Amino acid sequence: MTESVERVVTYHDVVAASERLFGQAHLTPTISCKTLNKRASQLVPRELFFKCENLQRVGAFKFRGAFNAVSQLSQGQLQCGVVTHSSGNHAQALALAASLHDVPAWIVMPTSAPAIKRNAVIGYGATVVDCEPTLAARESTADRVQSETGATFIHPFNNPHVIAGQGTAALEMIYQASGLDLIIAPVGGGGLISGTALVGEYHGIDIVAAEPSGADDAARSKAAGKILPLTGPNSIADGLLTSLGELTWPFVRDHVKQVVTVEDSATIEVMQYFWERTKQIIEPSAAVAVAVALSNEVLSNPRWRRIGVILSGGNVDLQRLPW
Amino acid sequence: MTESVERVVTYHDVVAASERLFGQAHLTPTISCKTLNKRASQLVPRELFFKCENLQRVGAFKFRGAFNAVSQLSQGQLQCGVVTHSSGNHAQALALAASLHDVPAWIVMPTSAPAIKRNAVIGYGATVVDCEPTLAARESTADRVQSETGATFIHPFNNPHVIAGQGTAALEMIYQASGLDLIIAPVGGGGLISGTALVGEYHGIDIVAAEPSGADDAARSKAAGKILPLTGPNSIADGLLTSLGELTWPFVRDHVKQVVTVEDSATIEVMQYFWERTKQIIEPSAAVAVAVALSNEVLSNPRWRRIGVILSGGNVDLQRLPW
Repeated sequence: MTESVERVVTYHDVVAASERLFGQAHLTPTISCKTLNKRASQLVPRELFFKCENLQRVGAFKFRGAFNAVSQLSQGQLQCGVVTHSSGNHAQALALAASLHDVPAWIVMPTSAPAIKRNAVIGYGATVVDCEPTLAARESTADRVQSETGATFIHPFNNPHVIAGQGTAALEMIYQASGLDLIIAPVGGGGLISGTALVGEYHGIDIVAAEPSGADDAARSKAAGKILPLTGPNSIADGLLTSLGELTWPFVRDHVKQVVTVEDSATIEVMQYFWERTKQIIEPSAAVAVAVALSNEVLSNPRWRRIGVILSGGNVDLQRLPW
Repeated sequence: MTESVERVVTYHDVVAASERLFGQAHLTPTISCKTLNKRASQLVPRELFFKCENLQRVGAFKFRGAFNAVSQLSQGQLQCGVVTHSSGNHAQALALAASLHDVPAWIVMPTSAPAIKRNAVIGYGATVVDCEPTLAARESTADRVQSETGATFIHPFNNPHVIAGQGTAALEMIYQASGLDLIIAPVGGGGLISGTALVGEYHGIDIVAAEPSGADDAARSKAAGKILPLTGPNSIADGLLTSLGELTWPFVRDHVKQVVTVEDSATIEVMQYFWERTKQIIEPSAAVAVAVALSNEVLSNPRWRRIGVILSGGNVDLQRLPW
């Protein structure tokens, strides 16, 4: 199984993606914060490094995968455009990636999606296609758009080019913060953690996946040795409510050292603390990874001293903060 | 008057301060944002550049002036320590500057100051001295500490070394964003705008001071040609509720092109917009300067195309956001 996945997407695909993204994605900074280092240094001296994908285009790492996937389409495919269903960061990411390639994009969104998200997608020149707020309706609507337009469906994570694109964040970080012992990234559908795992594996860096305890399919799947989908996820980390896919599960099974879960209460405390100390706005999904970096599970391991954390994004409804 | 002020603090004092601050203050980034450029480009194409003093130590530019002032003290003065009265960013800035010089600091704070601010000052190793929440009580308490300890009083703005230190933010920015036509900085007591004016004057860059309309002593003073103190200031920009001082007023009179005032409603709108678009947490006083950059008074001048804005800080009570 590992080998077949290795054939689907490899470290070298991540390197190739980073060349495609050059000049298109922002080379986001990797920052550190003395107070956070101090908080993490109770057992041994530690340094934490934060890859600021909150400063990425569309405010999230998702732009990397979407752009890489669109740039891999053939001329014929490009003419017909792209389609996806998403009410989150992937929607905006694909809309912008399509616009930069000058191709049409259809984004299937539930009628319940907030106006601000619909408007952002429209602002990038994409067409919003309404559907009922169920997964079945989203999928059937996307199928219909696909058959009517010939557009290529770009899955938010279960797509090798998307996985390779997401891996470029970790690839940049290991040059910005040398000698990392560990990289922590959040896991939802698994696109980011899979790309990150490819980079960690190649460079001999441990990988920990960060997951909210209210949506812990990755943790349960890893413990069971088989993919177990989510049932009734419940967490403020709205970007992490998705189950792993066929392509991403093997990375979690084989290349991720540990899946560490945190309660929403810890995520909220850490999110506010991070905002106050770093002046960076990060979304709850990113705060889950920071909370894991400060958890006993991670801090009890004295070998992990230089720790990279991928801040997935910074898209937050400022009218409804969780504290 | 200009000449006497020029003798009190000059451009070369700013350059000397920047050498003293090297390795002590953060060389904060200067960032830009496409959406904000677009919003400013309705009349002519424009680029806005934001100097991120929200990422400075203690979360505000105030560290620059406080550190520069402490570093200018004689050995004898250093032994006796420093004192100030402040419940804002200057309190933390002086506490940290004193700690880095390994000298004692007494910070006179009104009993009404929030616990979080008192604790931050104590966290830097300074001693908090309580007083009643009136200016008279603050001044008399600081006088008493001074006479009991021999500590040197470090005024938050009416001090040449503080003014020179604050000017280093603009000095860095003109190298980070070349060819600026205009620099905008907020004005409260006037330390930042005075240091900024020295840099603007020397390099031939226009300077605009940004002020909340509910605390518009700089605007009224400039219009009247004489210093007019505030009476009953009222604004969410809690860092800008102070009147100009003797040392800072001549800079506003002679070196500042224009004082532009904005209503709090505009500041709040712009503050939220800036958070959403840049993922940077800025405090209301910083948002005042951004609001001025987007005001008709500034945008109606087609000569101002490359505009630098000094974001004074990022210290905000996240439990009580103004929107």
